[in-house]
Amino acid sequence: MTTPSRRDLANAIRFLAVDAVEAAKSGHPGMPMGMADIAEVLWNDYYSHNPGNPKWLNRDRFVLSNGHGSMLQYALLHLAGYDLPIGELKRFRQLESKTPGHPENFMTPGIETTTGPLGQGFANAVGFALAEKLLAQRYNRPGFDVVDHRTWVFMGDGCLMEGISHEAASLAGTWGLGKLVAFWDDNGISIDGEVQGWFTDDTPARFEAYGWRVIRNVDGHDPQEIKTAIETALKHDDKPTLICCRTTIGFGSPAKAGKESSHGAPLGKDEVEATRKALGWAHGPFEVPQAIADAWRANDAGAEREAAWDKLFAAYADAHPEPAAELQRRSQGRLPEGFLAAADAYIAKLQVDGPVVASRKASQMAIEAFAPLLPELIGGSADLAHSNLTLWKGSKPVTSGDAGANYVNYGVREFGMTAISNALALHGGFIPYDATFLVFSDYARNAVRMSALMRAHAIHVYTHDSIGLGEDGPTHQPVEHLASLRYIPNNDVWRPCDAVESAVAWKAAIERTDGPGCLVFSRQNLQHQPRSEQQVRDIARGGYVLKDSNGTPDIILIATGSEVELATAAAGQLGDKVRVVSMPSSDVFDRQDAAYRESVLPASVRKRVAVEAGVTDFWRKYVGLDGAVVGIDSFGGSAPAGDLYRHFGITVEAVVAAAKAL
Amino acid sequence: MTTPSRRDLANAIRFLAVDAVEAAKSGHPGMPMGMADIAEVLWNDYYSHNPGNPKWLNRDRFVLSNGHGSMLQYALLHLAGYDLPIGELKRFRQLESKTPGHPENFMTPGIETTTGPLGQGFANAVGFALAEKLLAQRYNRPGFDVVDHRTWVFMGDGCLMEGISHEAASLAGTWGLGKLVAFWDDNGISIDGEVQGWFTDDTPARFEAYGWRVIRNVDGHDPQEIKTAIETALKHDDKPTLICCRTTIGFGSPAKAGKESSHGAPLGKDEVEATRKALGWAHGPFEVPQAIADAWRANDAGAEREAAWDKLFAAYADAHPEPAAELQRRSQGRLPEGFLAAADAYIAKLQVDGPVVASRKASQMAIEAFAPLLPELIGGSADLAHSNLTLWKGSKPVTSGDAGANYVNYGVREFGMTAISNALALHGGFIPYDATFLVFSDYARNAVRMSALMRAHAIHVYTHDSIGLGEDGPTHQPVEHLASLRYIPNNDVWRPCDAVESAVAWKAAIERTDGPGCLVFSRQNLQHQPRSEQQVRDIARGGYVLKDSNGTPDIILIATGSEVELATAAAGQLGDKVRVVSMPSSDVFDRQDAAYRESVLPASVRKRVAVEAGVTDFWRKYVGLDGAVVGIDSFGGSAPAGDLYRHFGITVEAVVAAAKAL
Repeated sequence: MTTPSRRDLANAIRFLAVDAVEAAKSGHPGMPMGMADIAEVLWNDYYSHNPGNPKWLNRDRFVLSNGHGSMLQYALLHLAGYDLPIGELKRFRQLESKTPGHPENFMTPGIETTTGPLGQGFANAVGFALAEKLLAQRYNRPGFDVVDHRTWVFMGDGCLMEGISHEAASLAGTWGLGKLVAFWDDNGISIDGEVQGWFTDDTPARFEAYGWRVIRNVDGHDPQEIKTAIETALKHDDKPTLICCRTTIGFGSPAKAGKESSHGAPLGKDEVEATRKALGWAHGPFEVPQAIADAWRANDAGAEREAAWDKLFAAYADAHPEPAAELQRRSQGRLPEGFLAAADAYIAKLQVDGPVVASRKASQMAIEAFAPLLPELIGGSADLAHSNLTLWKGSKPVTSGDAGANYVNYGVREFGMTAISNALALHGGFIPYDATFLVFSDYARNAVRMSALMRAHAIHVYTHDSIGLGEDGPTHQPVEHLASLRYIPNNDVWRPCDAVESAVAWKAAIERTDGPGCLVFSRQNLQHQPRSEQQVRDIARGGYVLKDSNGTPDIILIATGSEVELATAAAGQLGDKVRVVSMPSSDVFDRQDAAYRESVLPASVRKRVAVEAGVTDFWRKYVGLDGAVVGIDSFGGSAPAGDLYRHFGITVEAVVAAAKAL
Repeated sequence: MTTPSRRDLANAIRFLAVDAVEAAKSGHPGMPMGMADIAEVLWNDYYSHNPGNPKWLNRDRFVLSNGHGSMLQYALLHLAGYDLPIGELKRFRQLESKTPGHPENFMTPGIETTTGPLGQGFANAVGFALAEKLLAQRYNRPGFDVVDHRTWVFMGDGCLMEGISHEAASLAGTWGLGKLVAFWDDNGISIDGEVQGWFTDDTPARFEAYGWRVIRNVDGHDPQEIKTAIETALKHDDKPTLICCRTTIGFGSPAKAGKESSHGAPLGKDEVEATRKALGWAHGPFEVPQAIADAWRANDAGAEREAAWDKLFAAYADAHPEPAAELQRRSQGRLPEGFLAAADAYIAKLQVDGPVVASRKASQMAIEAFAPLLPELIGGSADLAHSNLTLWKGSKPVTSGDAGANYVNYGVREFGMTAISNALALHGGFIPYDATFLVFSDYARNAVRMSALMRAHAIHVYTHDSIGLGEDGPTHQPVEHLASLRYIPNNDVWRPCDAVESAVAWKAAIERTDGPGCLVFSRQNLQHQPRSEQQVRDIARGGYVLKDSNGTPDIILIATGSEVELATAAAGQLGDKVRVVSMPSSDVFDRQDAAYRESVLPASVRKRVAVEAGVTDFWRKYVGLDGAVVGIDSFGGSAPAGDLYRHFGITVEAVVAAAKAL
């Protein structure tokens, strides 16, 4: 073999996938076998990247939304020359290998986002393309297209069935994301079998209805047809493009090609042998002949590509030093000099001023204070801007085309919004915040989980945080949501009790770089709480003594958000041996050192009452079996907020009674 | 006024809505004002119901998917003669009124489903239409169309932006639900303003891509155009119909019509006055002139309609007594005679046989045992039938057209599936079960919440319930999900430890009528646990002593599911003063009387260790501050299950060590 054919190159993917799944005794060979030819053309002829630097600012982004086909991506990364040696492919799906069952952005160089939960990768791709468009809009100058890259996404029937594909595709169409190209792996098979029993959409027509350019009827095993389709996509940049590729799942397997049996299990030893024969692949497991390996390696081309860009960027930095520095700073995820000090000054002033506002309003005030210092802050709401209070004076919609565009009207699309937000964070250059009512975090639930799993620096703003929202009733009143969000690993939930804590929560979420912050705010006005300077500093520790007892406390009251004022009032009635702990973030408090936690909640004090307008059992971790919790374990009701608090017994009197009964 | 005009009739809706919102000082007048003309034509000329019997089996179903416009529905119910007196409309959005902020099926006669969380009402409507189709298919006989009703759904732009609208519309198209008619309130406004900045779909083309009949460009304020559109829809019954109605939000308000300011707040006293003038409505607040009230009343017509059907049904019952009796039984939600005894016999036999299987397999065995006795059981899975093990020998896909069709291939549409499942339960005649991996309950999260809020008798089957699923990795491994589902009020979560508990969980979920059951099963095999007859009976109490200590226990080990066998093994090493409590359903256990709970978990025994492969803090409610929990508070990993259990320290040794450290 001297000059490998395109099919040879594609077969290298196929057999790395087949062999790795066989070795792991689990995995999904069908998709990599089916999409190998498409991937080969894309990566060898179009994908602009540098395997030597997976973090190169202007690289194209590639997303495998049908993430169960992870071996396709690992094969590509390995063959292209990323730091993913064959030994890692041999350890596919083993503990702490760089080749987990589904692609994980925090495990493997060259993986842009974690996929597997179907449809979300596609929404991430929309977010990546939006990020590129906005950065280009803001930073490019005539002759200096320093931000100029594409987003490519593979997706299967499963992604297209998921509701989030509707939300994301609709937004991509509205935004005219011309550098986004999606490849539909139209193989007619999903896990339950041939899809005609449950997936009869005219998908091309559907995407045209969203304003996409659709290229129909591409033979996904014919490199020339694939090339022609991509060339067509590249000719225009006014609309996103969907390339519909007819493929055969498990391509090459004599017994399993075109069948769901190739989807999610090893082919089996005999069938692997038969497939080797059928495709004329005479090489052993994990063997890639040198000529094929050489043809795949993209290190030199990648290095040249980045070097050329470095040169362009140097000239740009010469001509436009300020935007160049800002773009670099943003891409590296560094906050502007002086931001933290400015934030502290703002917080200190708030403590003095003591505004009595709803915490959602306090949130808006914090945005108003911080956003002018943070061009990377990009806001948005799922059609609740005036309720979530996520707009500030400098907000400019992304649809404006303005270089300063920094606000996304997501429409009523919570799940798509959150997945796009995750991608804005992962792309680099942005600190995104999105927003909806706390109860509708449910609609976005798995994307919030993905923020936390992917360590994405995304901020989720959730207002109307309890029965305190009043008349809209139980469909709109969160009860279990605070606890449920806190239980997501690596997710920092904040529920501030006044304007000062609200600003601290915002600062904390902005400062944090290895995971999301969920900022939970009230609809109703909240009292201002007096604090010393030390107390103001301690807010950032997640929980702190807000009002102390005279000497060792007999009783500790623990509260969050709108219930802190109930706790302080109750403490006033209970005498001077009562301590009040404000606990805006139990996640952050739990990370503090043991000595600090003991100083706030001394182990010896067992008379503890927690107060929060949410499920009570969550608080047993702090009050134990001997304490009491004032909260709500049923759904809410439709009535003015005050009536509901009385009806459900979340009152000063109830806290006093609970404390006295201990 | 002698013969009221259609506009007069519609204005009665408008002003009841406007006046109620004004009195409540909160609410959404814009939508009822905009859709009043459509509602008037539909309800007065087509809607087949009986206000005197809101539970009439063959009534049409009406769903307000844009549920914030609840006053539209309350006005209709009041005017048509349901048991919803004007006093209730005056108490709109007040504590325990029958007119909550959003329509609630358990509060108000004539409300079929609870709406407000956007898009779900539309999905419910698809479920209602599916229910009708399947019941008609099974029970109708030549000359006896005893099941023959339509489903009508109103929806706004918000519903159409939500991803669930895609999932539900796609399935409705695939299933050819010809008796489903949806009205799109195309008013061009959502909460953030004019939708062109965030909603540019060609919605008619999109629905045609799903296989719907689309009627474009209907003037939603012209009764004749509305009638013509409905007549067109009724002419065919091969496809669902979307009627696209151009409307003006806040129709009639001189200052606020066509603007988002009419959407979610009272018009204000002066504007109400101006609107009265503009629409020529000379009547006081909550006043409906007699002639208009008379023209609206549908009690006589409704009673006649039901009487005619009663006659038909009597003749049907004469000719076909068995299906008639079964249809009645199913519609009334009664289980077949002898079912519970048969279930108990099956459970007793399992205890003797002691199969060692994965609980997902045990679940399938339970379905196999119970389904032949329960024609109302209708299954399904979101494209994971062979992983969830939800198919049984008698499964027939709904697309088969078979009279016995009882299985829904939902495709990869967890949210749509669950909302459709809710509707199958609410419609009557079905006990639905749906299924996906536990981690993807996230995708359906708010619909699970709605099951519980609506008291819908739906069963949600979630398999692959922990890191025990192994190689698929953290995207597929639930950690926080068990706790989060348990925190949903009125939701019964079961996580059985072997085949016997699995069968009891199924029986409990089938028996329960006032809410959902979430049945959580393992991927991996589980040991069989020995039990006395009393212990087998106690499983149904949610938690029970599985292995008791010799005398009062020193230590109690509490476990669920796959971790019960770790607890029993640990107990074996810890000596005979250790009790093991199996807690398959903490929700059910918490409802037991205090004496029973004390008998299982004596207050005096504080050395307690809980074991569950999920977040640990949940268990503090049982082990307090003095106990210990063996679980996992981080995301999982991709590796064989055994490796993960060892890596995360969920082992017999860890349980023993935790117990000894107390």
